[in-house]
Amino acid sequence: MARIVMKFGGTSMAGTERIRIVAARVKREVEAGNQVAVVVSAMAGETDRLVNFCREASSLYDPREYDVVVSAGEQITSGLLAIALQAVGLKARSWMGWQLPIRTSDGHASARIGEIDTTGLVASLERGEVAVIPGFQGVASGERVTTLGRGGSDTSAVAMAAAMKADRCDIYTDVDGVYTTDPRIVPRARKLKRVTYEEMLELASVGAKVLQTRSVGLAMKEKVRVQVLSSFVDEAAPLGHAEPGTLIVSEEDLGDMERQLITGIAHDKNEAKITLTNVPDKPGAVAAIFEPLAEANINVDMIIQNIAHLKGQAAPSTDVTFTVPGADLARSLDVLGKAQGAIGYVELVHDTRVAKISVVGVGMKSHAGVASTMFKTLGERGINILAITTSEIKVSVLIEEDYTELAVRVLHTAYGLDAEDAA
Amino acid sequence: MARIVMKFGGTSMAGTERIRIVAARVKREVEAGNQVAVVVSAMAGETDRLVNFCREASSLYDPREYDVVVSAGEQITSGLLAIALQAVGLKARSWMGWQLPIRTSDGHASARIGEIDTTGLVASLERGEVAVIPGFQGVASGERVTTLGRGGSDTSAVAMAAAMKADRCDIYTDVDGVYTTDPRIVPRARKLKRVTYEEMLELASVGAKVLQTRSVGLAMKEKVRVQVLSSFVDEAAPLGHAEPGTLIVSEEDLGDMERQLITGIAHDKNEAKITLTNVPDKPGAVAAIFEPLAEANINVDMIIQNIAHLKGQAAPSTDVTFTVPGADLARSLDVLGKAQGAIGYVELVHDTRVAKISVVGVGMKSHAGVASTMFKTLGERGINILAITTSEIKVSVLIEEDYTELAVRVLHTAYGLDAEDAA
Repeated sequence: MARIVMKFGGTSMAGTERIRIVAARVKREVEAGNQVAVVVSAMAGETDRLVNFCREASSLYDPREYDVVVSAGEQITSGLLAIALQAVGLKARSWMGWQLPIRTSDGHASARIGEIDTTGLVASLERGEVAVIPGFQGVASGERVTTLGRGGSDTSAVAMAAAMKADRCDIYTDVDGVYTTDPRIVPRARKLKRVTYEEMLELASVGAKVLQTRSVGLAMKEKVRVQVLSSFVDEAAPLGHAEPGTLIVSEEDLGDMERQLITGIAHDKNEAKITLTNVPDKPGAVAAIFEPLAEANINVDMIIQNIAHLKGQAAPSTDVTFTVPGADLARSLDVLGKAQGAIGYVELVHDTRVAKISVVGVGMKSHAGVASTMFKTLGERGINILAITTSEIKVSVLIEEDYTELAVRVLHTAYGLDAEDAA
Repeated sequence: MARIVMKFGGTSMAGTERIRIVAARVKREVEAGNQVAVVVSAMAGETDRLVNFCREASSLYDPREYDVVVSAGEQITSGLLAIALQAVGLKARSWMGWQLPIRTSDGHASARIGEIDTTGLVASLERGEVAVIPGFQGVASGERVTTLGRGGSDTSAVAMAAAMKADRCDIYTDVDGVYTTDPRIVPRARKLKRVTYEEMLELASVGAKVLQTRSVGLAMKEKVRVQVLSSFVDEAAPLGHAEPGTLIVSEEDLGDMERQLITGIAHDKNEAKITLTNVPDKPGAVAAIFEPLAEANINVDMIIQNIAHLKGQAAPSTDVTFTVPGADLARSLDVLGKAQGAIGYVELVHDTRVAKISVVGVGMKSHAGVASTMFKTLGERGINILAITTSEIKVSVLIEEDYTELAVRVLHTAYGLDAEDAA
């Protein structure tokens, strides 16, 4: 007998018809002899509806009251799923965040989960009841309702799995697992059987939108085995068993056979490149650029500093290029414009027509040559590299946006990731 | 300074536009120096939407989970009103039923309010905060959410007013007060300034749908002064002051000037008449009819037993006629059909084309002749009386449904209730 958490997103909970399909799936896990807690999202579109009500009521809404309003969406689906589970002959009950309780920080609208009391819940599971828990919500000091921020239900599921000491946390999503790259770009992309937390973090943060990044970080910290599964496969298939989706595990749990050099290739078109020309080449100049950006809470990613040039100038100077999230571009230009005097640059140039391509894999730790294969492969196709960053398990390059799909395809082939039987 | 409860129904809370109008109204009460707690319904239509979800999930839904689902409607509007109140410069916070808490019985989906802890609430009011409380909900043993049954928000408001020792409970509704009769039938109907709890109970239970009957009974028991006001009068009018609606008070609070013989005339077309023919005229025969109906929880209202007749029969027998709520007719016929052997009647006849007309007034306690005026007035118009019941403050007659409006109009005139300046 295993203890598992199943998490269903808004598309799976969108209407009673779909909720009944979820109930049938939960029933199969129970009949397989498992203790099951289900974490649910609000019906697709419901959270947006509730957020809009709050915005209409006041543009400066109190986040404590916003939490009261938006947490209702998951309250509704958890009650409905409990009813649907009883209708298929299971014992089931819902547990609101305040009933367990799921303690959180006081950071309303973006609270962080603290301690979860599972005493009542575990007793209920041991009586053979399925627990249904609204995702996204908890309770802060003073017994006020909190929510975790958009997409927080993945985090709720992982946190519940950790607190319950669950054997597995199954996340049912719109996709049926994590792929070597975006299958819309590379039809020969393969579904990964296993991926490490670290790889998943890199893949998620550079654009493979399967799980909320926070939930992956929490799973890594708490060593929760997370499985990504499709909500949309044939209802009769033995779920969580024969068609296992992708399991996210620690590096130790990765079998040697599965330990590939490169796990996946991600791309991200939401970066913007900024160049400051003729920055004085002297100590402290670079700090003068990045300190005001950090103060504005803008996350700088790739940084290149060209060699100093002297052409016709009094003092040596250099060009500094870096990337920021596209959504922060306007604010970045504003901050840097105000700091022109302090930094001493001549021109402020920006470009949003760039893309970041990353090759990710825990295997590259012990293998040289990953980066050079990447540069050579792209060079052979005439793709110019604008910037480079590396970590222990990732090499990322910035290229012109128009080459994104081509770059992903040629790298997917170069690292031997193409499936043998193409789609 | 007074402490008041304001209650707004679903039409007043239907959308953020209307919630802002409610906030403006609450602000005027606060600016008049009052401590204010607001009890709110769900947005119009929302409870129906949530109830339908439950029914779709299972026709035999668990009432504990139904309560989790449907209580979300008031949770949403209470958070939104708190936001809207802050937006007009007031301090405000929402209090869920479990946060106060509002303790109720375990009768899920139709719980009865028990003790309400107002410690935190009163401290909040005294800090100058407006309290916003979702109607219709509470919390039972084991910290499970309960609801009070449809229309329960009126009861929530009265119970809050009693627990807070409020000076007044203002119920904002679709109508601007209680009238001498339905103004759609009699344009010259007058709005009553005051009405007693007892009269209101009679008027409500026979069809003047202004307040939930349970809330009036609770107000009477707890001596809460309830005021019925319109949600739709000019926003600028000084509410709860110049345009006072109808105040529901105890008989002692009724001024002598206002003590009229007849307060109002109600009608109810939702009755059904049942006749059993040739019931044996012997002890125990009537009990054999009404015991099975009582066991089936069917509320019998008017009963007539004709004199015995012997025409061509071996034993004396009689016809028994009575009324039941129209919604219970099918069940009643089923119960009586099965009991034919035990009762010994010959024929079972029913008629739904009947109406009950009631004249109500505490003044009739000390005046004879109210009933005879009624019979005479109806007789002059050729309206046949099918059954009669009376209480200390009410005379009701059953007539053919087609005569309903005519009967109400002639009685309204006969008892001198017509307004002098007709609409």
